[in-house]
Amino acid sequence: MNVSGENIRMSVAAARSRESVVADLMARALARPGILSLAAGFTDNSVLPVEIVGQAVRNLPNAGVLQYGSNQGRPALRKAIAERLAMLDGGRCGVDADGVVMTNGSQQSLYLLAQVLCDPGDIVLVEAPTYFVVFDVLGGLGVEALSLPSDGRGQVDPDGVRELLAGLAREGRLDRVKMAYFITYYSNPSGISMDGGVKCALGKAFSELAPWVVAVEDTAYRELYFDAPHPADSVFALPEWEGLPRVVTGSFSKCFSPGIRLGYFATNVPKIVGKSLNIKAQQDFGSANLSQWIAGYALTTGAFDPFVAGLRTHYAAKARALSEALEEGGLRKLGWNWDDPAGGLLLWLRGPEGLDTGASGDFCRECLNEEVLYVPGDICYADRRSAPRSNVRLSFGTLSVGDLREGAGRFRNAAGRMRQYPLKEV
Amino acid sequence: MNVSGENIRMSVAAARSRESVVADLMARALARPGILSLAAGFTDNSVLPVEIVGQAVRNLPNAGVLQYGSNQGRPALRKAIAERLAMLDGGRCGVDADGVVMTNGSQQSLYLLAQVLCDPGDIVLVEAPTYFVVFDVLGGLGVEALSLPSDGRGQVDPDGVRELLAGLAREGRLDRVKMAYFITYYSNPSGISMDGGVKCALGKAFSELAPWVVAVEDTAYRELYFDAPHPADSVFALPEWEGLPRVVTGSFSKCFSPGIRLGYFATNVPKIVGKSLNIKAQQDFGSANLSQWIAGYALTTGAFDPFVAGLRTHYAAKARALSEALEEGGLRKLGWNWDDPAGGLLLWLRGPEGLDTGASGDFCRECLNEEVLYVPGDICYADRRSAPRSNVRLSFGTLSVGDLREGAGRFRNAAGRMRQYPLKEV
Repeated sequence: MNVSGENIRMSVAAARSRESVVADLMARALARPGILSLAAGFTDNSVLPVEIVGQAVRNLPNAGVLQYGSNQGRPALRKAIAERLAMLDGGRCGVDADGVVMTNGSQQSLYLLAQVLCDPGDIVLVEAPTYFVVFDVLGGLGVEALSLPSDGRGQVDPDGVRELLAGLAREGRLDRVKMAYFITYYSNPSGISMDGGVKCALGKAFSELAPWVVAVEDTAYRELYFDAPHPADSVFALPEWEGLPRVVTGSFSKCFSPGIRLGYFATNVPKIVGKSLNIKAQQDFGSANLSQWIAGYALTTGAFDPFVAGLRTHYAAKARALSEALEEGGLRKLGWNWDDPAGGLLLWLRGPEGLDTGASGDFCRECLNEEVLYVPGDICYADRRSAPRSNVRLSFGTLSVGDLREGAGRFRNAAGRMRQYPLKEV
Repeated sequence: MNVSGENIRMSVAAARSRESVVADLMARALARPGILSLAAGFTDNSVLPVEIVGQAVRNLPNAGVLQYGSNQGRPALRKAIAERLAMLDGGRCGVDADGVVMTNGSQQSLYLLAQVLCDPGDIVLVEAPTYFVVFDVLGGLGVEALSLPSDGRGQVDPDGVRELLAGLAREGRLDRVKMAYFITYYSNPSGISMDGGVKCALGKAFSELAPWVVAVEDTAYRELYFDAPHPADSVFALPEWEGLPRVVTGSFSKCFSPGIRLGYFATNVPKIVGKSLNIKAQQDFGSANLSQWIAGYALTTGAFDPFVAGLRTHYAAKARALSEALEEGGLRKLGWNWDDPAGGLLLWLRGPEGLDTGASGDFCRECLNEEVLYVPGDICYADRRSAPRSNVRLSFGTLSVGDLREGAGRFRNAAGRMRQYPLKEV
């Protein structure tokens, strides 16, 4: 009974929205059952909180958990989150529960923030590289993503940011900049955490040159450190950011369970809370009350802390396994380089100069032949045309240590078969 | 550390989005702990599926339920939904699982559909009265809601619809009509179900005059019939709708649990599925996998059928209790009228001519003094200025039978104290 719908004119928003890269990668993976995906940003099924979720559901305080909740989210959960944000910043962070909004994953936080802050033609500043799905969000809303300059260590370069803002002012476009998006802990995709000094310098730069720009600090991986927490405080605790509009986004996906689909944002701007809630009421009236109960149960009973401590050990071992397997396979001798991450779920490889890791290139085809999947680095840059072509994002989130070793071997094999770039046997 | 954010220029979308009426009603209710709300569209905590949810979580097939799912939703759940839609239409409905998209409540279905189909300035046809939150959705997207004419029985008038479409054609605005939204079973707010004959006649009218208009049939209350299912098939099963673009939306909120925040839409237009998924990937990457497992568990184990059968008996008794209490309190003698609903959660009262039930009127104030809350009927009309002023929506979803009786008494007391309209003691 399907119809083509060729007589239906769909919206501009529909025209702007494309198949997401993630969907395409997942489709490729599904089409080959034997493939090992080092691309997927999933977490590890073997360390999902089945026990805690079971306990939380056995301990429903009342049937009301299965009723509608409030649009902003369960007050006890928002309070626990505000307290945890403060704890992570050593008590120096002053956000309160009124500034916390529960969302359907931090993905919805990004979407709502872009909706309330940006009109088509506006600009959002992003890191280079950054979380590539943000380009779908912004593109879907007709908003331009513009890369912030980095230094040689993969840190945002505050002086470069000043020059960028000054340049935009000269072009008369500075007032179109509405938001600056940073992933500050074990970033997706680079694995790098933002230096505290850089974060402070950025606060000064925005304070002086564009104090209306809303800083959105994505802390999805913050709790997934391997040895010790990254020392930098969030923007909420840094005096250089005082008086500026700020948002911190967080998620229960990476450090608890993606399947409850729960994230949040916290902000010091009440009207961002208010307007986001107005739009959230149009979209869903509030995130799943049951999911919120489960997350709140984990946080307030103390079950969360030992659980996330276990994740740290688990993913640290997997990060090591992947890195060692690539090392032992001789990938560095083929001209590849990487830094071992100090947290998170991702390894960022810099391929040899001249190599093209793009989805339509030979290297990607070789990897598909080897039945191993990665995320091409170029899709993590706002301007794909000028993006470095030789980077690769690998995830050690999903696969077992054995499969990580096998995947690393396949990846190394594909790399070894490439002849398009000058092989530099080191 | 809050800032006013007065230097932040927010988006047009933010400016278009207002505090929802629901939020305002909830705030009023929360401010008075003793108030009895006949306004809230919640269901009854005493019949929420605590047992089934507990079983579903005890019977997780694997930890993967706590992992990310797919953007479109769990295949087994979508298949079960497609089969149930076919079953409800006596096997005459041919939608399949590929046409089903899981959403965060049917609210997100409406939002996504409006996003993919409508640009600012476009028109969506709605019933008069209709589900008032749809005005927030459309208003937030800059889309105009336009009322379809009704006959004296509260049914949409197909001849009137033809005249309306012809009039829009004369004004050159017919091509701006993108969607027609109907709540066809035990409607919110009217409690009325659309006659099968009317539904067929509407199919003919759209087929002849505006075949590109996507019909969105909201069936949220369809399974909550009291004695027997309403005999009309959905648009998917009616030959008069053959070849036209159609969507049926559904929800697990009313007939299962609002707290898992799960709804869906089904359509015969693949590109509506595709584009909605593109935007859904930007918003959340897929609804909570755990919620989907729970709903699928209920449907596929057969637990859902006896559960929803219990709801039917339960809400039928509550509908009767509220109606009888109003009757016995003498509300009809004060010039009020209503029809007992055959399903759903709502009672639609027609107040005496001249009475103004609006939120800023004397009657509403009297009800607040009596500590009883209702939904003013005027907010359920696209054009508030020309809307009937004397209707009221009461819900028997939330309160116990005892509280329904008490609430009915308070409502009757407020009605009895009104002197602004000519009291017609019948």
